[in-house]
Amino acid sequence: MTVTLQDIRDAAGRLEGVAHRTPVFRSRTLDGRVGARVFLKAENLQRGGAFKFRGAYHAVSRLSPEQLARGIVAYSSGNHAQAAALAARELGSTAVIVMPADSPAAKLDAVAGYGAEIVTYDRYTGDRAAIATRLAGERGLAIVPPYDHADIVAGQGTATLELLDQAGELDAIVVPVSGGGLIAGSAIAAKGLYPGIRVIGVEPEAADDTRRSLAAGHVVRIDQPHTIADGLAVPSPGELTFAINRELVDEIVVVSDDELRETMRFAVDRLKLVLEPSGAAGLAALLAGRIGRVPARVGVILSGGNVGAARLAQLLA
Amino acid sequence: MTVTLQDIRDAAGRLEGVAHRTPVFRSRTLDGRVGARVFLKAENLQRGGAFKFRGAYHAVSRLSPEQLARGIVAYSSGNHAQAAALAARELGSTAVIVMPADSPAAKLDAVAGYGAEIVTYDRYTGDRAAIATRLAGERGLAIVPPYDHADIVAGQGTATLELLDQAGELDAIVVPVSGGGLIAGSAIAAKGLYPGIRVIGVEPEAADDTRRSLAAGHVVRIDQPHTIADGLAVPSPGELTFAINRELVDEIVVVSDDELRETMRFAVDRLKLVLEPSGAAGLAALLAGRIGRVPARVGVILSGGNVGAARLAQLLA
Repeated sequence: MTVTLQDIRDAAGRLEGVAHRTPVFRSRTLDGRVGARVFLKAENLQRGGAFKFRGAYHAVSRLSPEQLARGIVAYSSGNHAQAAALAARELGSTAVIVMPADSPAAKLDAVAGYGAEIVTYDRYTGDRAAIATRLAGERGLAIVPPYDHADIVAGQGTATLELLDQAGELDAIVVPVSGGGLIAGSAIAAKGLYPGIRVIGVEPEAADDTRRSLAAGHVVRIDQPHTIADGLAVPSPGELTFAINRELVDEIVVVSDDELRETMRFAVDRLKLVLEPSGAAGLAALLAGRIGRVPARVGVILSGGNVGAARLAQLLA
Repeated sequence: MTVTLQDIRDAAGRLEGVAHRTPVFRSRTLDGRVGARVFLKAENLQRGGAFKFRGAYHAVSRLSPEQLARGIVAYSSGNHAQAAALAARELGSTAVIVMPADSPAAKLDAVAGYGAEIVTYDRYTGDRAAIATRLAGERGLAIVPPYDHADIVAGQGTATLELLDQAGELDAIVVPVSGGGLIAGSAIAAKGLYPGIRVIGVEPEAADDTRRSLAAGHVVRIDQPHTIADGLAVPSPGELTFAINRELVDEIVVVSDDELRETMRFAVDRLKLVLEPSGAAGLAALLAGRIGRVPARVGVILSGGNVGAARLAQLLA
C-alpha cells in the first residue's frame, strides 16, 4: 500500500494544534431510527468548513522551504480551494487558486479572505488543470491536487483516525466518496486499526463513478454528473485512490438528491448542524435505509458544511 | 443571595453524565470582526436543543420520590416544554405539558416523542398558568416553572460554570434574557468565580422588559412583545430572577430582528451551526456593535437551536 497507517499517524502529528479535533455527536433519535449506535464525526466544523483542510495542510506542510517560498497552486470550485488557500497561509506560503469565473461570490470571497490570488477561467471553455500546470511551470508553483496524491490521502485519513480514538472500536464507517481521497485514507486508518471493520462509501445516484469503477475493476469515466452534491460530482475516481479503494472498500451505496435534502433537514431539526449536500451523504445512506444490515456501532463522516445561507434556504424549503 | 455558586456546582454534579458538556467554539473571522477573543458556548447542541434542559432536569431531580411518582406539569410553547418532558422521562417520572393548540406540529411531536401528555389550550382565550395550577391540584402534579425558581436558576447557571471551565477566565459574558433564569444563574456563577467579570444581557428591541425593569428599579410589565425571537418574548421578568439580576447584571443591550436574522446567517455561513432567533441574541449584540467597548475575552451563550428547517429557510431567505 502506498499509504500506511503510520503515514496517517504522522499526518495527525503535523495537524495537531492546527486542524480542529472536531467533535463526535450522538443522537438518540438517530440511533432509534437506524437501530444502531451512530457516531457522527462533525468535519463540517473543521477549519475551512470541511475535512479538506486536513489533506491540503498535510500536503503543503511536506513541501520544502524553497517550495513554500515559491508558493502553491490548486484548482477547485469547492472546499479544496478554501482548504489549500488556508493551508498556504498557515504555513507562510502563498496560494494561487484556479476557480470558475462564475463561482458564487461567497466562495470567491472566502478564498480571497484567506489571502490567496484567484485566477478565474470559463467553466465551459477553459481547462483548469491546464491552467494550473501552466502557472506551476511559469512561476515554479507546487500543484496541490484535491485527492489523487499520497499526502492528501494520508491527511484525509486523520479524520477517521480521530473518530476511532473518540468513539472507540466501530463495526463500520460510512464515508462520502468524490475523488476517493477521504474514503481511501479512512479505509487505511480503519482497517489498519480494526481489520474487521466494514468501510462503506456513499455516492450520489448520478455520480456513482467509484461504484461503477469498482464493479468494472478499472477506472470508469461517466458524464459530468448533475446532483445537488456538487462536492461529490466528479466523473471518475483518482488512479491512486481507486487502487487503494478497490482493495479496502467493502461496498458503495448511492443516495438520491431528495434523500440528501431530507438529511439536511434532519441535521437542522435534530442535530442543529449545517451540512452541505455532499456532507450529508453518509448520514443520508443510513437514514434512507440504503445500507442493508446496519451493524451495532457505526461511524459517519459529516464531511462538510459549506453551503451558504441563501442556498441552504433554497434546499430546506 | 437565594442561589449561590455552591448551588450551581451541586446542580452541575446532578447534571453530570445527563446533560451534554456542550462544546465551546472559536472563529477567527468572528474574532477579527469583533476585535476580541470570543468563546461561543453551544447550548444549541444541548439535549432538547437548548440550555433549558439544565434547569428543568435539575428542578425535577430535586423532587421527592413520591412526587416523581405522581408526576410534573409544565406550561410552555417553547424549549421549556421539551426540556421538562425530557427531564421527567429521564428521571422515571411523567409529564403533562400545557401547550397552545396551534403550536407547530414539530414542537408538539417533539414533546410527545419524549413521552409527555399534552394538554392544549386556546392561545387567545385560555390561561395556561391556571390550567397548570388546576392540573397540579387535581392530580397532585409538581409545577416545574420555566425560570422563576431557585432550582431552575441554579441549573441554568451550569452553562456558564462549564463555559468558564472550558475557556478559562473571561472579561465579560453575553447572555440572552427572557424571564431571566439563564442570566441570573450565569451571573451568580461568573461573579462567584471572577468578581470583576461583566455580565451583559441581551433582549430583542421589542421585548426589553428586563432592561426597563432594571432602569425602573422594579418589575415592569410591557405589552406582549412581537419579535422573531419567540423564546425571549415575555412581558416581564420573574420576581426571583429580577431580584438576582438587579444585583448582578451590569448592562442590558437590545438587538433588532434584522440583526438576529443576520446573525443566524453568520452562524450558518461561518460556524455551520443552527441557531434559533433567541439563541442568536448574544452573538447578534457583538456582531451588530451593540456592546460599547468589547473587552479582550468574551463568552457568549448560544442558547438554543430549535427553529425547525422550514422556519429557518424563511428566516435565512
